[in-house]
Amino acid sequence: MKIKRVTVTPIAFRDAPLLNASGIHEPYALRSIIEVESDNGYIGLGESYGDAPALAIQNAVKEQLVGLDPFNLNQLRKVVQATVAQHKPQSVAGAELAPGSHASKAVSNAYSAFEVAFLDLQAHALNLPLVDLLGGKARDEVPFSAYLFFKYAEHIDSPYPADSWGEALNEEQIVAQARRMIDQYGFKSIKLKAGALDPEHEVNCIKALHRAFPGTPLRIDPNGNWSLETAVRMAERLGDTLQYYEDPCPGLEGMAELHKRTGLPLATNMVVTDFEEFRRSVALGSVQIVLADHHYWGGLRATQVLAHMCHTWGLGVSMHSNSHLGISLMAMAHVAAASPNLDYACDTHYPWQEADEEVIKGGKLPITGGAVKINSTPGLGLELDYDQLGKLHEQYLRCGIRSRDDVRQMQRYKPDWKQLKPRY
Amino acid sequence: MKIKRVTVTPIAFRDAPLLNASGIHEPYALRSIIEVESDNGYIGLGESYGDAPALAIQNAVKEQLVGLDPFNLNQLRKVVQATVAQHKPQSVAGAELAPGSHASKAVSNAYSAFEVAFLDLQAHALNLPLVDLLGGKARDEVPFSAYLFFKYAEHIDSPYPADSWGEALNEEQIVAQARRMIDQYGFKSIKLKAGALDPEHEVNCIKALHRAFPGTPLRIDPNGNWSLETAVRMAERLGDTLQYYEDPCPGLEGMAELHKRTGLPLATNMVVTDFEEFRRSVALGSVQIVLADHHYWGGLRATQVLAHMCHTWGLGVSMHSNSHLGISLMAMAHVAAASPNLDYACDTHYPWQEADEEVIKGGKLPITGGAVKINSTPGLGLELDYDQLGKLHEQYLRCGIRSRDDVRQMQRYKPDWKQLKPRY
Repeated sequence: MKIKRVTVTPIAFRDAPLLNASGIHEPYALRSIIEVESDNGYIGLGESYGDAPALAIQNAVKEQLVGLDPFNLNQLRKVVQATVAQHKPQSVAGAELAPGSHASKAVSNAYSAFEVAFLDLQAHALNLPLVDLLGGKARDEVPFSAYLFFKYAEHIDSPYPADSWGEALNEEQIVAQARRMIDQYGFKSIKLKAGALDPEHEVNCIKALHRAFPGTPLRIDPNGNWSLETAVRMAERLGDTLQYYEDPCPGLEGMAELHKRTGLPLATNMVVTDFEEFRRSVALGSVQIVLADHHYWGGLRATQVLAHMCHTWGLGVSMHSNSHLGISLMAMAHVAAASPNLDYACDTHYPWQEADEEVIKGGKLPITGGAVKINSTPGLGLELDYDQLGKLHEQYLRCGIRSRDDVRQMQRYKPDWKQLKPRY
Repeated sequence: MKIKRVTVTPIAFRDAPLLNASGIHEPYALRSIIEVESDNGYIGLGESYGDAPALAIQNAVKEQLVGLDPFNLNQLRKVVQATVAQHKPQSVAGAELAPGSHASKAVSNAYSAFEVAFLDLQAHALNLPLVDLLGGKARDEVPFSAYLFFKYAEHIDSPYPADSWGEALNEEQIVAQARRMIDQYGFKSIKLKAGALDPEHEVNCIKALHRAFPGTPLRIDPNGNWSLETAVRMAERLGDTLQYYEDPCPGLEGMAELHKRTGLPLATNMVVTDFEEFRRSVALGSVQIVLADHHYWGGLRATQVLAHMCHTWGLGVSMHSNSHLGISLMAMAHVAAASPNLDYACDTHYPWQEADEEVIKGGKLPITGGAVKINSTPGLGLELDYDQLGKLHEQYLRCGIRSRDDVRQMQRYKPDWKQLKPRY
């Protein structure tokens, strides 16, 4: 079996005005949709970053994949390494919230984009669910958490009508957002994206969630936007309400010191984002839970290596997300299902995606009882809806956004807004 | 696809009177040959330890595998874990030279024995070479090293005629052994098993090899039988003749101190034998090269995790062996071929095995130019020769040996022989 066609289609889909440590989401999120087709008619799918630097590498790589054996992931890696070495990509503005956008991740990002598609293609050709190429199911379904955001009711100068979620800035609104998400999807854990408003207020919102959903595991994620002192102070106010405390303050050293002072389990997708940082983290004792993300850790197999390493060092593993569609969701679910210790409820932005903007046939994937079920259809079990793909590609062409920049977007609301790290 | 039959056949094959730190090899080496057959007629093969405690676990596990999906390695692991928890195996005497024989390795050993067979079965059913389920070939052939031993001409009270290698106790005989191995197999690296005779003499033998084979990478392996002081003294005498210095002295702390004092690259299959020891080793800086062995590291996929971890910590990876047959050789070769940084020439005892004692069809596998070629036949590319299997099983039943014990065997030559650690 050889690869005969590879396509990389950049798309844009509507993204809600979600607040975070850098600023606010732009009206459209970018992704790329990868198709890898074999000479015997099977198609493997991947989904990755759609920012310009990532796309440039993906496009340069794809030309070299025709004729390759889709089982040879080692060969894919060599092609990606050589391409990145030639292109020398630069980091883009706004990369601080998307670890996958860093230039240092160019190899692992592009490798992952195609690795998932290669594995999906393998599994389709073998008539196996993808999870079976990763060791088989350790669980039948993968739990995800409700991912809450502070948000405005609508984008500034919005190119489309307001979303149905409304404003969420105070305790009542955040509790209402959680209630709707839990009612609709059955989530059993809650994560609040923080680092956007005053820390005291954000902690009050966690306490409100704790009262409204007693016993539900809670997490807060200030995206490293609190100083060590603020993080310690908020830890005192939070007490034992949290399942884990995610990236409250910046840096491996800062997190190590915070853990020493508070004893709280710290999670991260910001200070441990590659194997080298993992190595440094375990030497420093920085974090207790690593939020994996196959998009920038170098694919599904590398994510399993990470999970194994976390087991060796006695660390927990959960999963990070960026705005994404169903191919990413299902890839996350398959690798989580195959990894015995990837057992925290994973993050996902999927509920924020509008129902008419999925590129897979049948529309949005169901999340039921807070979980994504792994079924036994071949590969990821997904097929592209080419009408939808075309529509979102047109939207990409029209929207004018080429790299995510939440700072620039916030400056449209607040012209004197500056990126500060940490802000509080 | 479901598993419909699993067999575990203990075998014994002739083993030369090879000297080592514990004593001397017994006249027969034990292995077990695993067959896992699916309901659609495919067979996967594995080879593992044939000592009584390992066999007991393998036999208890095998009963529970019928009906399982051979793609579900996670389910296999659960069965093995539950079985070991129930059986509580004890370590056997003589386990110090066979890390796989430790009771603490019971899960990873038994899991590996069946994981290789499951993967071979998967690959047969999918009509793929096994290497393709591990990421595809990073190289087309896998280099092995000439594995030299001090040895007697024949066993005491030998149950069979002397082997063709003759005595090897002095420099000339060791050089002759190396010359024959290199002529016959084309090896490009040489390892000398040491810890058996006086250290000064063993180092003289390395120097003789250095003179006889200038430029050929050399290794010496005293199996932790030298004290730290002896290891430092020998390091001074060895100078820069070694590619790496394998397990000269015992313990993670001892190896860390030795590296600090000598700066020599240290390799091990004795102080880093599982992921927990890996964790401790990188904290201490004990070793620079880990000798992997899928039989006790928990299978082919776990060996790839180990290789990835070695990459992360900047360590080299090579491969350990015990006396083994062709199924083990080919499993080692496939995982090495799929792992980009498993690039040292691996150890193998295979040349010591007699030509009429291979259980695979076609007899002994070729080693050419010092390497084993990975071919594109399905799975490991091997089929059992049932006549040979029956013959070696009969030999197992007759030979009386049920657990390896090199100390006991040496006591037949030297009644006052005692295990000392370290001896020198």
